[in-house]
Amino acid sequence: MAVYTEVSDEELQAFIGRYDIGELLSYKGIAEGVENTNYMVHTSSGTYILTLYEKRVDPNDLPFFLGFMEHLSAKGVTCPLPVHDRTGKVLNSVGGRLAAIITFLDGMWPRKPKAQHCAEVGRALARMHLAGADFAIARANSLGLSGWAPLFNKFANHADDILPGMNRLIATELETLNTGWPENLPKGVIHADLFPDNVFFIGDKLSGLIDFYFACNDAFAYDLAICLNAWCFEQDFSYNVTKGRALLKGYDEVRSLTGEERKALPVLARGAAMRFLLTRSYDWLNTPKDALVARKDPFDYVRRLRFHQGVKSIADYGGEAA
Amino acid sequence: MAVYTEVSDEELQAFIGRYDIGELLSYKGIAEGVENTNYMVHTSSGTYILTLYEKRVDPNDLPFFLGFMEHLSAKGVTCPLPVHDRTGKVLNSVGGRLAAIITFLDGMWPRKPKAQHCAEVGRALARMHLAGADFAIARANSLGLSGWAPLFNKFANHADDILPGMNRLIATELETLNTGWPENLPKGVIHADLFPDNVFFIGDKLSGLIDFYFACNDAFAYDLAICLNAWCFEQDFSYNVTKGRALLKGYDEVRSLTGEERKALPVLARGAAMRFLLTRSYDWLNTPKDALVARKDPFDYVRRLRFHQGVKSIADYGGEAA
Repeated sequence: MAVYTEVSDEELQAFIGRYDIGELLSYKGIAEGVENTNYMVHTSSGTYILTLYEKRVDPNDLPFFLGFMEHLSAKGVTCPLPVHDRTGKVLNSVGGRLAAIITFLDGMWPRKPKAQHCAEVGRALARMHLAGADFAIARANSLGLSGWAPLFNKFANHADDILPGMNRLIATELETLNTGWPENLPKGVIHADLFPDNVFFIGDKLSGLIDFYFACNDAFAYDLAICLNAWCFEQDFSYNVTKGRALLKGYDEVRSLTGEERKALPVLARGAAMRFLLTRSYDWLNTPKDALVARKDPFDYVRRLRFHQGVKSIADYGGEAA
Repeated sequence: MAVYTEVSDEELQAFIGRYDIGELLSYKGIAEGVENTNYMVHTSSGTYILTLYEKRVDPNDLPFFLGFMEHLSAKGVTCPLPVHDRTGKVLNSVGGRLAAIITFLDGMWPRKPKAQHCAEVGRALARMHLAGADFAIARANSLGLSGWAPLFNKFANHADDILPGMNRLIATELETLNTGWPENLPKGVIHADLFPDNVFFIGDKLSGLIDFYFACNDAFAYDLAICLNAWCFEQDFSYNVTKGRALLKGYDEVRSLTGEERKALPVLARGAAMRFLLTRSYDWLNTPKDALVARKDPFDYVRRLRFHQGVKSIADYGGEAA
């Protein structure tokens, strides 16, 4: 929740002048977004988002992120669309940052997701996976299985400062994941961060997906496992099987899960919980207490992980075994 | 720069339902505004600002602030207009706060004001003063002359922690102001905080005034003196007489300053500098360093005050003596 980079009216006017989007009428910094600075911009042609890419984003990844959004839009998956300037470029700079103008997407993210939202998310995720099949650029998942041990090593000595026993919990789980991680599942471009705040609805209808800045190539079913973690737990950390069933059924309607994917879902869900447990733990230990960004509690993912450790098959998530 | 109160999509949907402004499509917290929480709201009928009044605002003052905006709008002074709900009310509550829906005003505030901006501001200020003449509600200026000594007393013992000699500087100046403060100047509703970030422009044309949450009844020329402080000093604290001349001339074109007002301008400008020196000093000493809101340096107003102390007449500001 922050504007990291201030842009002056004159700078922005010059920047907007590169694009064929009319006259600049107003801009306001948005108190959302953890990684980047976002302004909501009104021009005589409509509403846009101006995103300034802050230091945590690797500039080399931007053609992948922006290109994927364009690719999805062209395939009919609603998401924000990067606007090309008069020379054809989607990436320029303003305020000392790389920046893009992106179409504004109406809709609200559900603060209290219902089963119906989960069904819509399942369908949209599957559509996104199918639409990405012929996307030309690839990006490795730096926060996938091979990235977890190095990330853990950065804070392993302090892990028990978060919660006694955290070091042992993570170390043991990482061993299990390394041994049991499935290879050869169907792969492609995944969103990798499809939490409720990245899915917009108008009424009960999904109006679009946003924030593709963790997208990468990995197993489709792992993306679905991330959504199980993100959408199907209640605030008391209990798993809501009705939501899980809706999510899995919605996905299956658009893209049928293979037998291997169904079998792998429990270990993928453990892996997804581990991914967020690791990044939240690292951020918990390394974010100054007076930072503009609220730290998210790693404990949420300890609870999810414990649930997944007790799961025997996809049936426990509300899915069908075959 | 903060969202102090979070509002859920369901709460907001219910709230918007009270108004005849169409279906809620999206809302984003705005990273602007020091006192209140502001959301930019899209509905099927257009763009609005939702303001949630936080604890620093006295609920008893809200009918004055909102009523004055309506009054000005009706008189053709462009400013945000509070929207009435279906029962005729402009004030409701959401997220545990009193709240209002206000029309969105396009335009940008000038980060580097030019003389032409100052002329426009002078004219708009005078139009606002004339338009307020028949406004029915009154509100005392709690940050006027009689409020300064009590405010100073709250931090006098710590004043020298800001800057050595600050206690003496303020105490001496308050004596001078108490002795020389002009009575019986033309009075009415003043904005009292018309800084560049409260005046919107599209190109070089003024598109509207915002943020009436310090408006009150006081001398018109004191409002003009606040603008001299706010608009006519450069970043190195030098006074720009070209800007001052433009501001005073613009004002005079719409509402002629009386001889008494012209004579009083130097002491009013000292008073205006004192008002911001006092509130900034108090906030400087009382805002936690990790607060969401950036503290503004009181020293800016020590420098302005020193300039005003050397001024002999309105001519030094670029104005005409009669």
